[in-house]
Amino acid sequence: MKIKTMEDLFLHQLQDMYTAEKKILEALPTVAKEAEAPELKQALTKHRDETQNHVRRLEQVLHSVGAKPKGVKCKAIEGILEESEEQMEEIEDKAVCDAAIVASAQSVEHYEIGRYGTLIAWAEQLGHKDAIKLLKETLDEEKRADKTLSKIAEEKVNRAAAA
Amino acid sequence: MKIKTMEDLFLHQLQDMYTAEKKILEALPTVAKEAEAPELKQALTKHRDETQNHVRRLEQVLHSVGAKPKGVKCKAIEGILEESEEQMEEIEDKAVCDAAIVASAQSVEHYEIGRYGTLIAWAEQLGHKDAIKLLKETLDEEKRADKTLSKIAEEKVNRAAAA
Repeated sequence: MKIKTMEDLFLHQLQDMYTAEKKILEALPTVAKEAEAPELKQALTKHRDETQNHVRRLEQVLHSVGAKPKGVKCKAIEGILEESEEQMEEIEDKAVCDAAIVASAQSVEHYEIGRYGTLIAWAEQLGHKDAIKLLKETLDEEKRADKTLSKIAEEKVNRAAAA
Repeated sequence: MKIKTMEDLFLHQLQDMYTAEKKILEALPTVAKEAEAPELKQALTKHRDETQNHVRRLEQVLHSVGAKPKGVKCKAIEGILEESEEQMEEIEDKAVCDAAIVASAQSVEHYEIGRYGTLIAWAEQLGHKDAIKLLKETLDEEKRADKTLSKIAEEKVNRAAAA
């Protein structure tokens, strides 16, 4: 897809995020299975369900601007997820692995928070009101997921890893 | 490097971030050169100088915990930077390219904000006081750089791109 206008750029980034969310959706059950602390397992499982909604919302956003969801290459999320998988494989101790899992999950959250922030700013500039509303709903959930992970890390996972 | 303890995990992540900062340092001059809006060019050039300090600070952090800085593979930052470079090449219009440059730069900032947040939490858990101080200085600069980019996007770049 050739990017000539800001509208093209917005659509390209939406498709990119659509691919990213689907890859995250695929990765989360494996990570939740690897997690040892029940709070972490539960948070990741809950976020898997939220991510399913994020995929659906992006489909709605794309339809609202007259586009069809399609897969594109998203090297950023591929790199983040690959690094995360490789790190999990290198760690035998379950408590230390939990700390690495939180770090990777927060890395994904921060990537998404950045991207959704950009998408909202662009949707505002382009006047796509339905898109703004839907994208903000997802951004709020990503921010909450990140806060939950920080809380679990501070109150439980990091202490257990350092013990 | 085998990761057995939380201390190993902390060291591994520091080396990973050290590689990431050096790659960002390499990439920033090219991006600043491509940028059209003077405010954006200036912000990226300023952040290049800050990034030079972030590299030095990570060297200090590593020394403070008895480790030597070394290069490791960092697939996450490689993916983010490659995606960013490819997107710049796809866009001919300079104003639209500026919007994409801000998005990519904020994606890098958010990645770093997530990672430094994790490193600080781990340094606190492990009691590495010098490291905490140094990492917080960098985190503050990353957050400020992200805010500056949002301001430039809202006040200038996005409007120009949509015009």
